[in-house]
Amino acid sequence: MSDPAGGPGTVEEALAEARRKYRNWGRWGPDDALGTLNYIDDAKRAAAATLARTGRAFSLAVELSRTGPGSGHRGGGNPVHTMLDSGVEATAGAQGYPHGFGDADDVVFMPLRSGTHWDGLGHVFDNALAWNGRRRAEVVTAAGDRVTGAERQAAGFVSRGVLLDVGRAMKRAGGSLPDGHAITDDQLEATIRAQGRSARVTRGDIVLVRTGQLARCRAVGDWAGYASGPAPGLSFASLAWLHGSEIAAVATDTFSVEVRPPEFDAPCVAPLHQIAIPNIGLFLGELFDLEALAADCAADGVYEFLLVAAGLPIVGGVGVPANPIAIK
Amino acid sequence: MSDPAGGPGTVEEALAEARRKYRNWGRWGPDDALGTLNYIDDAKRAAAATLARTGRAFSLAVELSRTGPGSGHRGGGNPVHTMLDSGVEATAGAQGYPHGFGDADDVVFMPLRSGTHWDGLGHVFDNALAWNGRRRAEVVTAAGDRVTGAERQAAGFVSRGVLLDVGRAMKRAGGSLPDGHAITDDQLEATIRAQGRSARVTRGDIVLVRTGQLARCRAVGDWAGYASGPAPGLSFASLAWLHGSEIAAVATDTFSVEVRPPEFDAPCVAPLHQIAIPNIGLFLGELFDLEALAADCAADGVYEFLLVAAGLPIVGGVGVPANPIAIK
Amino acid sequence: MSDPAGGPGTVEEALAEARRKYRNWGRWGPDDALGTLNYIDDAKRAAAATLARTGRAFSLAVELSRTGPGSGHRGGGNPVHTMLDSGVEATAGAQGYPHGFGDADDVVFMPLRSGTHWDGLGHVFDNALAWNGRRRAEVVTAAGDRVTGAERQAAGFVSRGVLLDVGRAMKRAGGSLPDGHAITDDQLEATIRAQGRSARVTRGDIVLVRTGQLARCRAVGDWAGYASGPAPGLSFASLAWLHGSEIAAVATDTFSVEVRPPEFDAPCVAPLHQIAIPNIGLFLGELFDLEALAADCAADGVYEFLLVAAGLPIVGGVGVPANPIAIK
Amino acid sequence: MSDPAGGPGTVEEALAEARRKYRNWGRWGPDDALGTLNYIDDAKRAAAATLARTGRAFSLAVELSRTGPGSGHRGGGNPVHTMLDSGVEATAGAQGYPHGFGDADDVVFMPLRSGTHWDGLGHVFDNALAWNGRRRAEVVTAAGDRVTGAERQAAGFVSRGVLLDVGRAMKRAGGSLPDGHAITDDQLEATIRAQGRSARVTRGDIVLVRTGQLARCRAVGDWAGYASGPAPGLSFASLAWLHGSEIAAVATDTFSVEVRPPEFDAPCVAPLHQIAIPNIGLFLGELFDLEALAADCAADGVYEFLLVAAGLPIVGGVGVPANPIAIK
Repeated sequence: MSDPAGGPGTVEEALAEARRKYRNWGRWGPDDALGTLNYIDDAKRAAAATLARTGRAFSLAVELSRTGPGSGHRGGGNPVHTMLDSGVEATAGAQGYPHGFGDADDVVFMPLRSGTHWDGLGHVFDNALAWNGRRRAEVVTAAGDRVTGAERQAAGFVSRGVLLDVGRAMKRAGGSLPDGHAITDDQLEATIRAQGRSARVTRGDIVLVRTGQLARCRAVGDWAGYASGPAPGLSFASLAWLHGSEIAAVATDTFSVEVRPPEFDAPCVAPLHQIAIPNIGLFLGELFDLEALAADCAADGVYEFLLVAAGLPIVGGVGVPANPIAIK
Repeated sequence: MSDPAGGPGTVEEALAEARRKYRNWGRWGPDDALGTLNYIDDAKRAAAATLARTGRAFSLAVELSRTGPGSGHRGGGNPVHTMLDSGVEATAGAQGYPHGFGDADDVVFMPLRSGTHWDGLGHVFDNALAWNGRRRAEVVTAAGDRVTGAERQAAGFVSRGVLLDVGRAMKRAGGSLPDGHAITDDQLEATIRAQGRSARVTRGDIVLVRTGQLARCRAVGDWAGYASGPAPGLSFASLAWLHGSEIAAVATDTFSVEVRPPEFDAPCVAPLHQIAIPNIGLFLGELFDLEALAADCAADGVYEFLLVAAGLPIVGGVGVPANPIAIK
Repeated sequence: MSDPAGGPGTVEEALAEARRKYRNWGRWGPDDALGTLNYIDDAKRAAAATLARTGRAFSLAVELSRTGPGSGHRGGGNPVHTMLDSGVEATAGAQGYPHGFGDADDVVFMPLRSGTHWDGLGHVFDNALAWNGRRRAEVVTAAGDRVTGAERQAAGFVSRGVLLDVGRAMKRAGGSLPDGHAITDDQLEATIRAQGRSARVTRGDIVLVRTGQLARCRAVGDWAGYASGPAPGLSFASLAWLHGSEIAAVATDTFSVEVRPPEFDAPCVAPLHQIAIPNIGLFLGELFDLEALAADCAADGVYEFLLVAAGLPIVGGVGVPANPIAIK
Repeated sequence: MSDPAGGPGTVEEALAEARRKYRNWGRWGPDDALGTLNYIDDAKRAAAATLARTGRAFSLAVELSRTGPGSGHRGGGNPVHTMLDSGVEATAGAQGYPHGFGDADDVVFMPLRSGTHWDGLGHVFDNALAWNGRRRAEVVTAAGDRVTGAERQAAGFVSRGVLLDVGRAMKRAGGSLPDGHAITDDQLEATIRAQGRSARVTRGDIVLVRTGQLARCRAVGDWAGYASGPAPGLSFASLAWLHGSEIAAVATDTFSVEVRPPEFDAPCVAPLHQIAIPNIGLFLGELFDLEALAADCAADGVYEFLLVAAGLPIVGGVGVPANPIAIK
């Protein structure tokens, strides 16, 4: 479509309108480093904990390995995990410890967005400005994000989680949306209605949107198209819902959250990111593996849970690797 | 002391006795990859969630940076975080995106035990054998831990957490135990009694032992002695308690969990690790920052909480970086 | 062909025969760490220096970048070069140095065979044995190659170089051999004859064999097939020549020196490597960019030069990154 | 001293005077990426090759390992070399290759100035400008040095080398200058006179200045003071000689080439770098191991040689790791 925001217009016009409508700058004070995580408070977390009724726990992280879904974007690639020592080495006698002691150690080289992660508030800028209207050049330097780095949200990402299984709800074959499919507000609302009361979204929730793409790529054993090329994802038009629902974060089982290619005629990179991160202050989660959780939700009809999805507090990190845990 | 296990004896005798008494091999079947995490079940997690009463959340992870507490052991050192792009770069005009779009990306090179982490079951061996009696050379190879790697416990480390603030309970100056101080069973029990009912330890708990060393090193701005040299920590004699209490994991605010130097006359490396990991199947957590949590517990007298401490599922990882979240 | 060694036979028979004929074990004593580099002595180097007549110098290294020819083999991939600081950063005012000082610094994460490199003597084993008949498990451990690591040949790779431009000599279109083309002894000799007196190969020479594949891949801007898939290269049958000529090293403009796929019916990995490295003690150079040098040689008809191709002395390295310099 | 440049003055005045006297901007055209390497031409290289008379070759690189002299500056540290596979692993049966094939592979994470290296022309800036008067922010970005990166001098650093063994010539105990010793023009000239005719410096030479510090640190097995703290090195006043002699490069056996601390009363970082690199366009080499070469030169009285010191062509690299080879 030429104008996902509702009327005729160019990408420039759509961006301008979205900035005007959805910008949250100053909402949480000039020094804010939490963005939409501010919607979460103690009461929200306490209420979320009551959703952990049965104690079933699900990890939503993809496995980190050299054969994972990491893209080659900007030299990204996958994590490279190497051993400094191993049991094989210990057995070969190279360690020389007394009393039967032996050990193993390891290191990793990891692009920070190569596995399940949150995009930090410093990941995307809009017209030279980062979240809260700060000058990007004063926020993210070679030293990393000095204002809104990963260490600032170390205790964040604890809230009520809601799964919106759009793939299943739209009754697609295999529960998977086709590449290029743009998820609109209407489809999100229709999914909520189809899933029932437990799927109602409230302020401060962390919303997990399942497209089915990750499962589809894994099933065919080919990640080639996952990190680039067409993918299902949120429509630029869904920004109204993302902003108005006052959610704390949204994550998908795709590489980029938003639909690829973008829905505009003119070339653009990631217009939903450009509004969501620096303007709304919204955290976007990518490469979430929602399969086991989604199967459980489909089975018992309960789509809400306690979600603890804190990432590693890498000082200045703009990509925030996490192992999100959902507890129903 | 020459024999922390209770009677006269050498390190070899102490190790032999500890193996005989505490070995859990086969307890959870021949294919087990969870060790003492098996003590946690759905009911335990559900009960733990009820401890998140007020919704106050605490991150227990140390910040990951080049100036952190990581040791130089085996080329360890600290994480090195570098930017692939930044706001400064974007502003300088190097990116060339249209419509005001700009972004930043980053990578990290990280020794896996350089920050807050769990020692994986493949981290330490005893007489050529790894956890559950498996041959270490068949478990941990250059490809990492092929049997009990971090990806196998991706949804683990969710349970009731209990803080034992031994530093405060022993009324040490500044709430910090001196380097070389060995924490015995008696001291753990005395701490529980001093802290009251909420500190009682039950099967499946994850126990956090605070010595105060991390705060002490941070206060003086010097990590030189943290990763090596004398440190407070658990006594070899505490293995009876660690095993008998059927806890799921134990973590401290030190680099090595156990007291340094070891309590034996003969040279040895890490005798508590040697029994705890490959024989008990017990997960040891290191570099946990317990300060904010401990202050909160001291203030309200409640030492129990929901703990979600899942680590990154690095395939084959024997060091498991984590951002543990305690919710009271 | 089913038997590149000359008669009917299997890969096992061919390997056995090649071991019997070409094995150099013990030739330079039991402690040797130089292999065929022993063929180079002071007199050889002094004579080689006289070949640097005009002073024209050529770098034979491919550029090291994220978009280079590095393969994904074993998580290999390309080097990732990141800046710790930059001029952009300095200008943005983040450095805070007095008197107008500013600087930049950088790091690299690099698979050691991702660019122009020598295969170290510890890179390949034959039936559990490394070069000179040593047990591979005692030679190459998690600590790297403890006997024949890159630091042992730090002053090596200085000798007379000879270019054998087989691609040009065989009058292939574009001077490039087709993928899968196996270069035999006869073709090497024919190339020498075609190139004339300066191309005669003598003891201690470092021979550079140009197939044209690197230029071909670069011209089409696609490295996908370079690191794997069919490639031109030396025939298994050329081992007789490689051994008998008593050269110090051989390098090509391909990823693997030897022809791919191997010339045997049964599956095998890299049979020429298996004989050349651990049995002959021959150094193989890969990813050499011979284009500028080859053009110069074709122009003046002189195919010999001083070659200085020492690699980085990474302690224990089995891949040895180098920037070989040819001086005519 | 308050004014190493000869008269009374501040660091600002000294810098201003040095800029006025020594600036080479435009000397080799507006597009230059070679700086003082322009002093080397074919004739120079051909003449240099005639100095390789005996064929004795010396590597001037320090070994790259986790226990090397690399500093902690900006998270620098030493290289970390890890194995992707090993002989121990192969023997343990993890590889599964047929026909007795086995192999090993490795990666390195390396700060680019952690071992023997050249400072690239983009390493230091002066008042927002890089070499040749270019704006530093347009030269060195997160993508590295886009104008004068290491790949631009890939065939450089081939010339006549001259060793100036100041430590020996000044008859210091152990041939080592004390930390803080500033080497002046006079001392360089006195060394040349003491060493004789072969030590005369001519246009395009690469000059190696030995202080003895590296040997001194290695002898006591302690690199703590090498990368920071006082060190011997070139005086700011030697810039007249460095500029006027029209040498192509200068290298030392220290971490920083210039004396530490700087010779000015006011705080400054590296004033000789600030003039030499961006103003003169002079390449500075650091961490050169000159011991074996110096002993040979002292023995035969010949201080000139062919030097081939090309570094790895890391695209955009501002630190250029090299294994310099001297051939006498």
